[in-house]
Amino acid sequence: MRAARYYGKEDIRIENVEEQKCGAGQIRIAPAFVGICGTDLHEYLGGPSFIPVEPHPCTKETIPITLGHEFSGIVTELGPYVSSFYEGQRVVVQPTIYCGTCEACKAGVENVCYNGGFIGLSGGGGGLSDSVVVPEGAVLSLPENIPLDVGALVEPLSVAWHAISAAPLTPDAIVLVLGGGPIGLAIVQCLVALGTKKIIVSEVSGTRQRFARDFGAHHVFSPTKYDPVGLSKQLSRNIGPDIVFDCAGVPESITTACTAVKARGTVVNVAIWEKDVPFNPNMLVIRETKYTAVLGYQRKDVQAVIDHLAAGKLKPSKMITSTIQLEDLVECGIKALIHDKENQVKILVEVGGMSRVDSAVH
Amino acid sequence: MRAARYYGKEDIRIENVEEQKCGAGQIRIAPAFVGICGTDLHEYLGGPSFIPVEPHPCTKETIPITLGHEFSGIVTELGPYVSSFYEGQRVVVQPTIYCGTCEACKAGVENVCYNGGFIGLSGGGGGLSDSVVVPEGAVLSLPENIPLDVGALVEPLSVAWHAISAAPLTPDAIVLVLGGGPIGLAIVQCLVALGTKKIIVSEVSGTRQRFARDFGAHHVFSPTKYDPVGLSKQLSRNIGPDIVFDCAGVPESITTACTAVKARGTVVNVAIWEKDVPFNPNMLVIRETKYTAVLGYQRKDVQAVIDHLAAGKLKPSKMITSTIQLEDLVECGIKALIHDKENQVKILVEVGGMSRVDSAVH
Ligand SMILES: NC(=O)c1ccc[n+]([C@@H]2O[C@H](COP(=O)([O-])OP(=O)(O)OC[C@H]3O[C@@H](n4cnc5c(N)ncnc54)[C@H](O)[C@@H]3O)[C@@H](O)[C@H]2O)c1
Ligand SMILES: NC(=O)c1ccc[n+]([C@@H]2O[C@H](COP(=O)([O-])OP(=O)(O)OC[C@H]3O[C@@H](n4cnc5c(N)ncnc54)[C@H](O)[C@@H]3O)[C@@H](O)[C@H]2O)c1
Ligand SMILES: [Zn+2]
Ligand SMILES: [Zn+2]
Ligand SMILES: [Zn+2]
Ligand SMILES: [Zn+2]
Repeated sequence: MRAARYYGKEDIRIENVEEQKCGAGQIRIAPAFVGICGTDLHEYLGGPSFIPVEPHPCTKETIPITLGHEFSGIVTELGPYVSSFYEGQRVVVQPTIYCGTCEACKAGVENVCYNGGFIGLSGGGGGLSDSVVVPEGAVLSLPENIPLDVGALVEPLSVAWHAISAAPLTPDAIVLVLGGGPIGLAIVQCLVALGTKKIIVSEVSGTRQRFARDFGAHHVFSPTKYDPVGLSKQLSRNIGPDIVFDCAGVPESITTACTAVKARGTVVNVAIWEKDVPFNPNMLVIRETKYTAVLGYQRKDVQAVIDHLAAGKLKPSKMITSTIQLEDLVECGIKALIHDKENQVKILVEVGGMSRVDSAVH
Repeated sequence: MRAARYYGKEDIRIENVEEQKCGAGQIRIAPAFVGICGTDLHEYLGGPSFIPVEPHPCTKETIPITLGHEFSGIVTELGPYVSSFYEGQRVVVQPTIYCGTCEACKAGVENVCYNGGFIGLSGGGGGLSDSVVVPEGAVLSLPENIPLDVGALVEPLSVAWHAISAAPLTPDAIVLVLGGGPIGLAIVQCLVALGTKKIIVSEVSGTRQRFARDFGAHHVFSPTKYDPVGLSKQLSRNIGPDIVFDCAGVPESITTACTAVKARGTVVNVAIWEKDVPFNPNMLVIRETKYTAVLGYQRKDVQAVIDHLAAGKLKPSKMITSTIQLEDLVECGIKALIHDKENQVKILVEVGGMSRVDSAVH
């Protein structure tokens, strides 16, 4: 079968590999649509960083690793003892890999498992292949009214849903989102679905600003044209937003987040950082501000996203700016995102020619 | 009357100044004992930083400013309309200055008032003088069984009490305290008073390590001899402490705090920082750790400290390593703390010769 495998920096190959076996408690899935995400770009441009070069504690695998952690697909085989799914079922995969025995896992927060990883990054196969075998517990049913391409957006939306759950959100909260990439836009959509009264977005790119407005942000501006601290304060009863999400992850955004937020407010950092940044904790001291960070999502977040999609309360399909074929992954997917970030949000790879047969329509 | 007034870096003068008037709702206090604190040292060595050079929004005052924000004393005059106090009463002062009208004040968190300050740093007189006039609301009665010198420790203990209230402390929590200066030692004492099962302290100075042990810390070590992350993890069920207090405020301690704390744990930064430090938010991301910061205290914290002192549950008098006279403030107080930090914890200035007449005995 075909698989997109990561060998190292700027080295991703579409190869023919053997199918994994479908063992007890496992499910084989034919991926339908697979999102390309910032993490994939980081690995391509500067990795391997997350992708294991030493055997991963859970999967025992090392490079080459099959990519693709944001995906929907069709069940094609059930291993022994699997009873909650059926062949032909439309599903999405929660790619979280966890050990189940560490203190984080025992405390029910597998997303911060001390030995954790992700299907499609840490071994255990990936969505960018004709077939992938995953544990039953990683599979969630995709309701019939959610198209498979939208199913591939469940993962970034779950990141957003989980990030929001780390903040003390109330309906009348004023929220500032820094960065309008896929994650920032996913947060805007989830905030809208939750009925948030005032959503302010700071984003550099004009196209992405437009997306933020289309998805329901109430105030959208460029931090190169306006002082984001001053303007967001003005828009927030002159005291600053209650909650700030940092989805930009640059030195300017951490300072903006920590100085804009109101006294006793909460900054949620969603970004993954490439290197150390200059930071002065006094920014937090003088206002007793909380700074918290999130990683991944829990099953309840994924299920909440699916439920809100099924109920029509999340309508993210406009995030898909391009759909390509597996063979074009590097040229039309990864490189397009690197060189035309401005105009792209989510590029999906269509793996199984599923768009022609998917029962759900947009 | 005499007053120790701050004119600028390395310029503190004991001068003769006029007494303030005691107006409506105000109380005149003859300070008894006044603690010298790290903030005073910072102002002396590198200020003015907190002390206003532009008119302070609340007090309208600028340099020269009378120092002394940690003090006990005796009521010597009651302004009109003051009914809850009497002349001769033993009291302590909560030095918080707040505007009462900003959103923080309206939300009941005057300690982070957008225009706030401190008596003894921002104008409004200070404890290092023969007489100081403060609003009735800033005064708390000191029970008869608490000596006046211990009363001067109420302020740093309130910082500690307040810092602890920002953490999700449970009796079986494992807590790491970084830095065993007056604030770190005050936190140890408050944790002990609250019945905390395991208190770990990392402190460089041998003398201060001994103090930490004497005050009830269960494990005390030097970060120059042991790896503080590894050792505190070992002492914390191999997952890391539930809560870390940063009372050191150096680049090493912020990194230790953020990497030592357990998944989903809480770091409380108590330190005030002199400059930016290199920081990588990924330290918080991979464990979904909360980083929060505290400033000052609220009246309920001060009252809780007084109650615990009166009940004998806090016994901080050993923190007082030296008591000096007002004339010796710079030479035997500030300079002693700068050059002999290792052996000093709290130096008190005895202003009114009160030790001879204080009714409470140790
Ligand atoms: N915590 C998690 O589990 C998790 C999961 C997925 C992604 N992430 C991280 O979330 C972040 C966002 O992901 P993404 O895919 O949207 O990335 P992205 O790079 O596409 O989006 C970042 C956006 O920030 C904008 N930006 C840059 N500087 C800015 C500034 N000063 N102010 C405002 N906006 C600014 C950019 O124009 C860009 O649109 C990344 O760091 C990514 O690694 C985290
Ligand atoms: N947030 C507030 O309201 C508030 C109030 C008072 C004081 N403070 C701040 O709290 C901090 C502590 O105050 P303090 O009076 O105890 O200061 P201090 O300087 O006397 O104590 C700091 C201690 O940290 C130790 N230390 C240095 N490097 C260390 C390391 N790497 N690991 C462990 N210990 C280390 C030092 O030996 C010293 O004993 C200061 O930054 C002070 O400004 C804050
Ligand atoms: Zn992703
Ligand atoms: Zn685990
Ligand atoms: Zn002080
Ligand atoms: Zn105020």
